[in-house]
Amino acid sequence: MAKIDELQTCLAHKGLDAAYISDPMTIGYLTGFYEDPIERVMALLVFPDSEPFLFTPALEVEAAKGAGWTHPVYGYLDHEDAYALIAAHVKKQVTEPVNWGIEQNHLTVSRLLKLQNQFPSAKFNTDLTSTIEQMRLIKSDDEIAKLNEAGKWADFMLEEGFKNLQLGRSEQEIAANLEYELKKHGIMHTSFDTLVQAGAHAAEPHGATSQRKINNNELVLFDLGCVVDGYCSDVSRTVAIGTLNKKQKEIYKVCLEAQLAAQEAAKPGITAEELDKVARDVISKAGYGEYFIHRLGHGLGLSDHEFPSIMEGNHLVLQPGMCFSIEPGIYIPGIAGVRIEDCVHITSDGCEPFTHTNKALKTFELM
Amino acid sequence: MAKIDELQTCLAHKGLDAAYISDPMTIGYLTGFYEDPIERVMALLVFPDSEPFLFTPALEVEAAKGAGWTHPVYGYLDHEDAYALIAAHVKKQVTEPVNWGIEQNHLTVSRLLKLQNQFPSAKFNTDLTSTIEQMRLIKSDDEIAKLNEAGKWADFMLEEGFKNLQLGRSEQEIAANLEYELKKHGIMHTSFDTLVQAGAHAAEPHGATSQRKINNNELVLFDLGCVVDGYCSDVSRTVAIGTLNKKQKEIYKVCLEAQLAAQEAAKPGITAEELDKVARDVISKAGYGEYFIHRLGHGLGLSDHEFPSIMEGNHLVLQPGMCFSIEPGIYIPGIAGVRIEDCVHITSDGCEPFTHTNKALKTFELM
Repeated sequence: MAKIDELQTCLAHKGLDAAYISDPMTIGYLTGFYEDPIERVMALLVFPDSEPFLFTPALEVEAAKGAGWTHPVYGYLDHEDAYALIAAHVKKQVTEPVNWGIEQNHLTVSRLLKLQNQFPSAKFNTDLTSTIEQMRLIKSDDEIAKLNEAGKWADFMLEEGFKNLQLGRSEQEIAANLEYELKKHGIMHTSFDTLVQAGAHAAEPHGATSQRKINNNELVLFDLGCVVDGYCSDVSRTVAIGTLNKKQKEIYKVCLEAQLAAQEAAKPGITAEELDKVARDVISKAGYGEYFIHRLGHGLGLSDHEFPSIMEGNHLVLQPGMCFSIEPGIYIPGIAGVRIEDCVHITSDGCEPFTHTNKALKTFELM
Repeated sequence: MAKIDELQTCLAHKGLDAAYISDPMTIGYLTGFYEDPIERVMALLVFPDSEPFLFTPALEVEAAKGAGWTHPVYGYLDHEDAYALIAAHVKKQVTEPVNWGIEQNHLTVSRLLKLQNQFPSAKFNTDLTSTIEQMRLIKSDDEIAKLNEAGKWADFMLEEGFKNLQLGRSEQEIAANLEYELKKHGIMHTSFDTLVQAGAHAAEPHGATSQRKINNNELVLFDLGCVVDGYCSDVSRTVAIGTLNKKQKEIYKVCLEAQLAAQEAAKPGITAEELDKVARDVISKAGYGEYFIHRLGHGLGLSDHEFPSIMEGNHLVLQPGMCFSIEPGIYIPGIAGVRIEDCVHITSDGCEPFTHTNKALKTFELM
């Protein structure tokens, strides 16, 4: 069944008259048209029994039509009242929609108020967030093929990053160089800002790539990915420059054990929380539990951070087709940071990673 | 007065007990800590008479403290209930806040519900969007200096883009090359995806940079910018490759006249709507009105698209310190697209652009 038909069926089951889909990722997933309208209004209006339509800024209408969406696309000019136009188009499909579904995790309060203003007696209490999450949760073979392709290019980015390691070269130069090599192949978007962090700087797990230069006898953390055909990759590797001390070696070893244990344990039947615990236990038993300050992983697909979270409190049972990261990290402020990450998809009896760069500690002797 | 004090005073005037600030740009503006928490929770809690605090994911706490914010920063771990923690911290400052201000244009419905759930008898009806917009609308000298610096680098990007023009080279290669040159100087973020569009492709004003190759006798549109010290630049130029036909020359001439007329007219006292009309009239009188399908401009500062919109219906009177783009465009489907853009700040008697790349038609004879 086409994804849009699946959503229509679901609206009928829920007794909804209309759905206002606002998340550009969801719109892309359902229509094939991926675009970030920034502050402009873009929405997909879906009804159980009548034709859905896409509503976009006027300057996106042609692109939306060209993306393979075969239902109507209506545009609006900047000075027009987008919500009045949406309401007029809706009323042609459903005379008086009462029960609406919205994406509560995306729709802003001000836009909900504008929509309510057009349909003053309607109810906007139904949240479609988890419906959409469920639809997007299990990836099709086609989606997994795209994730594998994106993963292949993430491995390429790592390889280019490793080639670029030089004493005295800055984190930023290395990131710029590896992104340039990627873009030369026509892949124009990274999944997020490429992270290259050397030495103690890597103990800031979400710190930015800086002008700090690569030194001898330290760890360098890479966290990067790219977008291919709409789908994201995300991989982390930490490598050694010169000779590591005992502590540096130990945290690498513990982090790798945690990553491998979790990747081994990831299979249908285990819950997200249990999987987090597999990695966390390894790190805690080694005495570094307090330095692993984030969840084990996050879903990925069209977005580089999506449902499900692999963390304490998430009792979701993993099933074939679910895709997420396995990325334990140990960050000791002022000393060093290590993170090792592959994103995987659950198979019938285990999991397969999208990235394949070797995880054994790689050491670079630089001059 | 520090910006946070200004907001506190404003909350007191409005009779509010607390404000929940959720837009990362606003948080950056008020605290000096700029970070995109992606799907995690980040908020700034402000009260009229007690100390504000920043609430961030645990892994951002150190960075927030290091960014110069001198009030408390509280973190949360992924498995913790962020809103329960926020509520506990709030109650230490204000026993029972009733009237809340929120950013309706940023806060999602689901997060508002979570906040309401913690304060079931409180009211969340006050929108601070326009208060914040007003604060951010008039840029300080310090902000204008940063915008000038960002503009200087946008001119650099254009120059590198022009150097890279070659017959048979793709739009994507040119974009990758000019971004690489920028990043080599340590400027790691573009304001948005660099746009290089050749020939008829440029008639899709928000189309992406593609693998289309540069040909002779066509126009090539560049729209690009970068982020320096948190502030954005944004500039567009359209250049000629080889010999243009009469139509191509005419639309360039008309677009340039419109841009120059608006830049000349931009001064204190004129409204945003009137300024839009100055450019639109030039294009309409030349017979191309239907091909100028977007507003004249948008504000810029910390964000590359912010308040105010320079468009029909916006009666805002321009004042010194306001910063926005002046970017008329003429897009004839299947033929060509032209856009010419400078961002400016209003001065006491006119405006000054942040970018200075010449706007007279530049022609490249390529082999």
